[in-house]
Amino acid sequence: MIFQPRADDTPMPVVDLAIVEANLKRMQAYCDSHGLKLRPHIKTHKMPGLAKWQLDLGAVGITCQKLGEAEIMIDAGITDILISYPLIGPVKAARLAGLARRATLAVVADSPLAVDTAAEAARAAGATIRVLVEFESGGRRAGVASPADALALAHRMGAASGLTFGGLMTYPLGPEAAAFIAEAKALFAAEGIAMPEISAGGTPRAFHAHEVPGVTELRVGTYIYNDRNTVDQGAASLDDCALHIEATVVSRPTADRAIIDAGSKSLSSDLTPGGPARGYGLMPDYPEAVIVKLNEEHGIVDLSACARRPEIGETVRIIPNHVCVVVNLHDEILMTRPGAPDVTMPVDARGRSR
Amino acid sequence: MIFQPRADDTPMPVVDLAIVEANLKRMQAYCDSHGLKLRPHIKTHKMPGLAKWQLDLGAVGITCQKLGEAEIMIDAGITDILISYPLIGPVKAARLAGLARRATLAVVADSPLAVDTAAEAARAAGATIRVLVEFESGGRRAGVASPADALALAHRMGAASGLTFGGLMTYPLGPEAAAFIAEAKALFAAEGIAMPEISAGGTPRAFHAHEVPGVTELRVGTYIYNDRNTVDQGAASLDDCALHIEATVVSRPTADRAIIDAGSKSLSSDLTPGGPARGYGLMPDYPEAVIVKLNEEHGIVDLSACARRPEIGETVRIIPNHVCVVVNLHDEILMTRPGAPDVTMPVDARGRSR
Repeated sequence: MIFQPRADDTPMPVVDLAIVEANLKRMQAYCDSHGLKLRPHIKTHKMPGLAKWQLDLGAVGITCQKLGEAEIMIDAGITDILISYPLIGPVKAARLAGLARRATLAVVADSPLAVDTAAEAARAAGATIRVLVEFESGGRRAGVASPADALALAHRMGAASGLTFGGLMTYPLGPEAAAFIAEAKALFAAEGIAMPEISAGGTPRAFHAHEVPGVTELRVGTYIYNDRNTVDQGAASLDDCALHIEATVVSRPTADRAIIDAGSKSLSSDLTPGGPARGYGLMPDYPEAVIVKLNEEHGIVDLSACARRPEIGETVRIIPNHVCVVVNLHDEILMTRPGAPDVTMPVDARGRSR
Repeated sequence: MIFQPRADDTPMPVVDLAIVEANLKRMQAYCDSHGLKLRPHIKTHKMPGLAKWQLDLGAVGITCQKLGEAEIMIDAGITDILISYPLIGPVKAARLAGLARRATLAVVADSPLAVDTAAEAARAAGATIRVLVEFESGGRRAGVASPADALALAHRMGAASGLTFGGLMTYPLGPEAAAFIAEAKALFAAEGIAMPEISAGGTPRAFHAHEVPGVTELRVGTYIYNDRNTVDQGAASLDDCALHIEATVVSRPTADRAIIDAGSKSLSSDLTPGGPARGYGLMPDYPEAVIVKLNEEHGIVDLSACARRPEIGETVRIIPNHVCVVVNLHDEILMTRPGAPDVTMPVDARGRSR
């Protein structure tokens, strides 16, 4: 073995908190140096303790994707949350109202129905909810297509009691963002409507956010751990990857094949944009090995390009392609720090997809 | 809306127990008619209540993939379990010993180390553990390559106290199975070693198991719910799919695009062998729609081929590509049955990947 395993049993996600700390401080310093507010997205780590660390370092609040994640964070005492997801319908309104009674809530909208859902929640809670308009910047996901559409939604918020127009948001920070922002700022200024925030998301382009005029807030999640995708996209190095999976080689049926006890239920089936040829994760101690296929609990590893090969019973490390979905597969994570005892921590908001 | 949603909130997996019952009875009847023992794999449903239903209908025991799953099932009172996975090393031996004190356990091995791990567990527990030799039949996963290798492992079991040779197992039931089985049976007979079971796995080829001479036991999991893959492979029809995800259309940013609130954290990133063109699940009420991309909590649906299109706020159904990994993403499932009240049930063995 060429590294010292930390987990007693496998498969197990293991985090190096010294790397986490460096990642958190680097992003906060970047935001501070460019006058950007940092509002970390907890979708990656899903742990209140890490969210509080982010706040202690200077974050203005946190971002959640789903109400269920926000519930966990509010239960832990966090008080300023943006839910960067369109909430639609009376059930979501009732749940949002429950949270708006307990914390400062903001949501996003790209449709009249999303605005109306937030208004219903604000009314029920007797609270004020900020609403940002999500806009299309090239990601081809949700978001209004034109500044005029954004303006119409802002007017709808103005007509509803309990809502305040919170500005604009987009994900990712696509190539069309700068033109949209410039046009929207001019349009809203001409209408005499203040533009409180322009919020941009996504770790891969995070360190370029200051290059887009008008952006005031950064929502990033993956940067806390990083992964193979963020390395591929130039936003981190392999040494900045704070989480790996420890797995055991459970079979060596042929000279060229190893089976590890981490499959799609531990690593997810997310590939990198490089496709199947790059495999389902990187084994840093066997860089020529390719995890060519995953079954649910089996990882099939092609060793044909490896000079040195792992033996049956050996513990190996895997840096995941996409760490956010990997964290969501595990109930707990082993937290390590050089010189300190290892601690197993629950992933409190795991699986909170509603 | 063209179906009646059952879930109060989305995304939510919903199961029709009438379809489950038909699926369970069909497989049991198939096994009974061909003299095959049925040992259902609980990796798909992960619920003790459903495992007990399978046993009540005639299953000889259950199959688990990981020790953690077996622990949940034994806690619920199930007493006969095959762990169809190579267990390697002292930690797994200690955990297996703990289970072998409480239930009748069998495991599989394709290496001396796996046999030795089982032997250590049997010794520690003061119990007898059956060990089946996993063999390669074309799946190119784990498994010994030759009957001679299987014989060597059987001899190793014979030399260890507390182990009994349980026969052979393979997954899936590949094209090389028949020749391997015939050769192995002859070899073992010549040595005077009885061949208690030959266990084959996998829903897609399940109804062909009787065509392979020598197979005595069938391990199947997916058949309880079925999914798009089992339909594609001819082992079920769409009407046999017992589980769907209910999701809400949360955005309709363009005429051709819908965003649903089920992404890779609800549907997994598993494609069908048909690849990305077939999408990340089937929307039976909008069969021309293609779920072309998943982000973690967003499903991006291409509606360009649809004459009729879902509206924002509408609840839609999705039949997953691969139901086993989908179940593993959800803490609970809404169980429905015509004429009976709906019940939310926990997925007790979810995430038990160790």
